[in-house]
Amino acid sequence: MILTVNLGERSYPVRIGRGLLSQAGGLLNLDRKVLVVTDSGVPSQYAQAVAAQAKTAVTVTVAQGETNKNLTVWSTLLDRLVEEGFTRSDCVVAVGGGVVGDMAGFAAATYLRGIDFYNVPTTLLAQLDSSVGGKVAVDHKGYKNLVGAFYQPKGVLIDPDVLDTLDARQLHAGAAEAVKVALTSDRELFELFESGQALDRIETVICRALSVKASVVERDETEGGLRRVLNFGHTVGHAIESTCGFSLLHGECVALGMLPMVCEAVRRRLLPVLESLSLPTHFSGDVQEILRAVTHDKKREGDEICAVLCPEVGAYEFCRLSSEELAARIGEASL
Amino acid sequence: MILTVNLGERSYPVRIGRGLLSQAGGLLNLDRKVLVVTDSGVPSQYAQAVAAQAKTAVTVTVAQGETNKNLTVWSTLLDRLVEEGFTRSDCVVAVGGGVVGDMAGFAAATYLRGIDFYNVPTTLLAQLDSSVGGKVAVDHKGYKNLVGAFYQPKGVLIDPDVLDTLDARQLHAGAAEAVKVALTSDRELFELFESGQALDRIETVICRALSVKASVVERDETEGGLRRVLNFGHTVGHAIESTCGFSLLHGECVALGMLPMVCEAVRRRLLPVLESLSLPTHFSGDVQEILRAVTHDKKREGDEICAVLCPEVGAYEFCRLSSEELAARIGEASL
Repeated sequence: MILTVNLGERSYPVRIGRGLLSQAGGLLNLDRKVLVVTDSGVPSQYAQAVAAQAKTAVTVTVAQGETNKNLTVWSTLLDRLVEEGFTRSDCVVAVGGGVVGDMAGFAAATYLRGIDFYNVPTTLLAQLDSSVGGKVAVDHKGYKNLVGAFYQPKGVLIDPDVLDTLDARQLHAGAAEAVKVALTSDRELFELFESGQALDRIETVICRALSVKASVVERDETEGGLRRVLNFGHTVGHAIESTCGFSLLHGECVALGMLPMVCEAVRRRLLPVLESLSLPTHFSGDVQEILRAVTHDKKREGDEICAVLCPEVGAYEFCRLSSEELAARIGEASL
Repeated sequence: MILTVNLGERSYPVRIGRGLLSQAGGLLNLDRKVLVVTDSGVPSQYAQAVAAQAKTAVTVTVAQGETNKNLTVWSTLLDRLVEEGFTRSDCVVAVGGGVVGDMAGFAAATYLRGIDFYNVPTTLLAQLDSSVGGKVAVDHKGYKNLVGAFYQPKGVLIDPDVLDTLDARQLHAGAAEAVKVALTSDRELFELFESGQALDRIETVICRALSVKASVVERDETEGGLRRVLNFGHTVGHAIESTCGFSLLHGECVALGMLPMVCEAVRRRLLPVLESLSLPTHFSGDVQEILRAVTHDKKREGDEICAVLCPEVGAYEFCRLSSEELAARIGEASL
């Protein structure tokens, strides 16, 4: 299926289907110089499959892990683009998870003030989350996505077959992102998770979650307001992520980050869903440290924290929380 | 006077007038945390004047010169924004020439994926050129503006009084940019230069040149086509700039870069204008080296070079040149 993200002249198609990787050459414009960016954790056959369909491919494999999503590694991508003589007519393709997509996308966004970018996400998290929205970035000074841009890809290709090589922990962490979308915006999708059938119907999960995300992004491209709904679970999630030294996966942090933002009734339904996906429901770290990290988070405006709450399944509301209110919520959720 | 650059929700005002610097607090939204970026070559009273009108000002003075417009210095601006706790609601103000505007603008464009940016250009070149258009960037690997973005400021404030402290060479180099605009798009402005009255009527020159530039940018925000007219003289100009080790000023390189792109009749009128402004008309460097640098220039598409020609004063045409054709033109112009 094709989902179109409608953003005027920056519109682009998201293609979802088993076996699409082998058709990349026909679905993306690879008849030019192509920088294929992947990481050492991604089975190399995926990047090779894309490179083999390009007119001229240069493949860069960065070291796996969030700690490599930084300005230094990003600048090595720029160096490579220069050295290989990439022009404004050439392009970058990310083949990997969110780290690869965010960093390769930021390189494409900034090289010569922007060249074409395609995203071929190979983890469930990246397929559900970073593939739609145009948020590209690297981490800096210990803060997630501190340096980046809003830069839309020219196209996204999602092949669920690549999930066969993903380990269970990664798969479950990715599913947390779909649970997030379901909680705030798609009651039926949440019920699919409650039924235990979600992972067996992964294409449905991806399509439904991306439809919600695309519709939000279309109405608020640069996160002026509405788009904050997508940050549900992320304010505390990001803070946990930066204080735990990245020992937890992003999706695991989002799972934890949702718990203080839902009411008691929703939490009673959310906990068994998280448990069925082997996602954490308790964090042993220091709550004060989380609060300190939150106040440096980019969702902060002035002295209050902008948060998204889930008062019932399939609904959300925006609010501003003081540090004290946030601390109380974290306490109630027994994080 | 106020000139509005109309770019939908990214529209912004350019205010031009003597004494405006002292009104910055009323004309720009400085009622928040403000990073004032200037350089060591700019009289410090200009940055101080802006800082004094901000709610909370943090002033950073970078070392003067194009060689400091790089990723390393840019990342120190980001560091400072983090350290001082800047949020998405805060802003950056550039007070200086093109180097400061480009680099501070790129920091604003990328910090937290973009915070508000104001430009207060203090050189004639920056007032005429980089103040309108939203092109922000730093140099990398010896190439001008290799890493950057299209990012529109929230407002521009041009106070011609600040030109009183600019040395004559800088003033003349800046005027080259107005000659460039006049040649391709404003015959009357070119005649003002021929009359020898241009520098005495600098507000008129700035207004006319920026009006042309704004109208082009409005029709082609991201340099897809038409906007290339603004690159008249820049393909060869940038190449000279990068091969001469920045011993010539940008405007001086543009002056040289225009000469191969005009026909013989226009050149006969252009040479006396350049001479009246003490601008160079001959370059002692290696033509082969210029050609090599041109092929790495970002205006290159595939194997040909996209160029802008001036067939008569006030007119332009786009063309694609092979390296051989470009070499022949450089020869004819006796660079």
